Amino acid sequence: LKENEIDAFREEFLDMHPYDQGQFFEELDEDLRFALYEMLSPEEMANIFEQVEVPEEDYQDLLSEMHPMFAADMLAEMSTDDAVDVLNELDKEQVASYLTIMDEEAADEIKELLHYEEYTAGSIMTTEFIAIKANQTVRSAMQILRREAPGAETIYYTFVVDEQKHLVGVISLRDLIVADEETMISDVMSERVVAVSVAEDQEEVARIMRDYNFLALPVVDFQQHLLGIITVDDVIDVMDEEASDDYSKLAGISDVDDTAGNSPFGAAKKRLPWLIILLFLGMMTASLIGRFEDTLNQVAILAIFIPLIGGMAGNTGTQALAVAVRGIATGEIQEEGKLKLLVREALTGVITGGSCGIAVTLVVYVWQGDFILGALVGISVFATLIVATLTGAFIPLFMHRLKIDPAVASGPFITTINDLISILIYFGLATTFMGYLK
Amino acid sequence: LKENEIDAFREEFLDMHPYDQGQFFEELDEDLRFALYEMLSPEEMANIFEQVEVPEEDYQDLLSEMHPMFAADMLAEMSTDDAVDVLNELDKEQVASYLTIMDEEAADEIKELLHYEEYTAGSIMTTEFIAIKANQTVRSAMQILRREAPGAETIYYTFVVDEQKHLVGVISLRDLIVADEETMISDVMSERVVAVSVAEDQEEVARIMRDYNFLALPVVDFQQHLLGIITVDDVIDVMDEEASDDYSKLAGISDVDDTAGNSPFGAAKKRLPWLIILLFLGMMTASLIGRFEDTLNQVAILAIFIPLIGGMAGNTGTQALAVAVRGIATGEIQEEGKLKLLVREALTGVITGGSCGIAVTLVVYVWQGDFILGALVGISVFATLIVATLTGAFIPLFMHRLKIDPAVASGPFITTINDLISILIYFGLATTFMGYLK
Repeated sequence: LKENEIDAFREEFLDMHPYDQGQFFEELDEDLRFALYEMLSPEEMANIFEQVEVPEEDYQDLLSEMHPMFAADMLAEMSTDDAVDVLNELDKEQVASYLTIMDEEAADEIKELLHYEEYTAGSIMTTEFIAIKANQTVRSAMQILRREAPGAETIYYTFVVDEQKHLVGVISLRDLIVADEETMISDVMSERVVAVSVAEDQEEVARIMRDYNFLALPVVDFQQHLLGIITVDDVIDVMDEEASDDYSKLAGISDVDDTAGNSPFGAAKKRLPWLIILLFLGMMTASLIGRFEDTLNQVAILAIFIPLIGGMAGNTGTQALAVAVRGIATGEIQEEGKLKLLVREALTGVITGGSCGIAVTLVVYVWQGDFILGALVGISVFATLIVATLTGAFIPLFMHRLKIDPAVASGPFITTINDLISILIYFGLATTFMGYLK
Repeated sequence: LKENEIDAFREEFLDMHPYDQGQFFEELDEDLRFALYEMLSPEEMANIFEQVEVPEEDYQDLLSEMHPMFAADMLAEMSTDDAVDVLNELDKEQVASYLTIMDEEAADEIKELLHYEEYTAGSIMTTEFIAIKANQTVRSAMQILRREAPGAETIYYTFVVDEQKHLVGVISLRDLIVADEETMISDVMSERVVAVSVAEDQEEVARIMRDYNFLALPVVDFQQHLLGIITVDDVIDVMDEEASDDYSKLAGISDVDDTAGNSPFGAAKKRLPWLIILLFLGMMTASLIGRFEDTLNQVAILAIFIPLIGGMAGNTGTQALAVAVRGIATGEIQEEGKLKLLVREALTGVITGGSCGIAVTLVVYVWQGDFILGALVGISVFATLIVATLTGAFIPLFMHRLKIDPAVASGPFITTINDLISILIYFGLATTFMGYLK
């Protein structure tokens, strides 16, 4: 590219929305990426890099392509929370070396955030917020906002602190611009400010912002010092992540979203662990059926209903699981509501089991002309559905009590457990009442 | 309650955040709700009602409790988009009667929004936005914002229109407050404004707002007239809804979120349709196994591996389904990428099928001491996993092509289809090679 072409490209490129710049960057091959690093300042590159979403292991490669000083400057120019997200994907030594050559102030801010555990409010907050004092006028607060606006994550909610940096109030820009300029902030701010602790679970943060329709939420330590803010765009990403996580686990796959762009080997790597676990659970089911080989040898027709009973058990268990996992995630199911849910699920199992049991009995009777066989399959369906529904609800509730993420009790796991249970019930009943079968 | 107690309660109640008022209201019994209607103005009640989330059928009951005039005034005072959401739950005649007694201007705005189809940008937008002209100064725009702020859904993004109400630009309040007051809007606004068509799918709207981190998005007709705006809080609700919808369908249940608070009958009603469908699919599987009764009578041991093979087929299909559904939902899989995905899934099936097939062969050989039986089960697992993975990916892609929501191809449906396929492959192979079994 000639000098003037570079200028023209630069101008057009920088005029695009950062998200589009990021998408464009992701499409480039190595040579063109190098050209871009030459062309842009660390600050311009920082805007792009904030939008780049590549598989975790690729961040390291991208940064290594850049001159170390350029990379460090770029990280310093990024929003602190975004820079921390990138650094979290790198080796410890690499992080240390970037922080050493980086501008000290930026490095300190980043170090502070690197401390916080993943999935907490601290890990998604930014320290680039504007705080004002209660004893200043609206006019002086607006001056601060105008001055700080370029570097701040948001200026639409401004948090008010006292001399010791305790959070004491909040005021929206909406209220600021309609207030008289000479009013004191303390007279127009709201003292009923909702804040979260720095150690709060990010899912709870998302819930609060969704319910209260906040655009920004302050994060405090246990002494109510204002540490940072979380903005709505970060919460949207959290919600996306959590939803996709629950969804992935229901499908028995370690990460659904990452997979779409993967190679077959990458995809297989994410799915095989579950398939192998299921294989061994399936072997257990097989060995269980093996114990009823005598029954099976005498009444081979019993085998044809194995998939029917197992399938219904698996499905009703997954339904109950999904309701329990979502109920816990949305906070609808609290500690005290757990017993109520189990009772509800048991009754639901009786209703669905009863309906399906009667239907199965009739269909099998008409089809095979053997009422006893029909009743046997029907009663098995009835009993299986009650037990499977309860199991599906109980396991996630129990895991929640043990402080394990209930979504780990994935769909295929519940399905296979219920497969086992259904076989036990079906062949147990069949062996007992075999004498009555035709 | 005495007069002064009412005043004290009123003051404290109205000082709460509207979301908390809504939560409080939902907990009240009928008598107390009546007391509240007496105590509050339609406008105060509107703020609460915007936050109320009850099962769809309950909105009608709540409104009928109020004096019709009070209900109509309250609906008129609500944000237009929230009022429309409530009215969408009522009978047509009820809607008409409220609109007749309502303030005419409010009724007109609501009527306009009632036209738009559910799940489109039009159905979630609000008409309470502020539009300014390109040829006014920043000062006069700020005056408009200050005046209109109380009634507007957001003032943080202001959209710029020409004389014919065509959308021509956008300016954030952030840029407005730092701009010189005498500047013309046309000089500071951004002309690269992203807008969506009124008929756009709400999922696409959510995607744009998430990717570009917008707080508000303008909605236009096909001639670029500005019709309304969509704010980030509404998009969060849409994302929640869509995620929970995909999740529900993967679990085979019509609505996971609604169920948690339901009676056993309500819960059973939401789950039975799927269970009944599965029951009949299960009968088909049973009748398919029935066709291989001869094989089964001769080699009863074959039956013990039915759940193993069916379970693995079901699970790998669900994994592929989940990847395809999410890929379509996030826009990662476009029309041209479909063939690529199918090839990728086929290869993934070969890898997972190969690994699991070899493992199964060895385990069954060691366990049963019959290499042919091991190989038979192993080859069945291999073939089944390839076909099931392809089926799981193909069905949602095919539905997407037919413009059907791919999430309708729910987990249990794919599982059962793959059950059927696995039986066919397993018993087909077994019947063919039966002579070689011990």
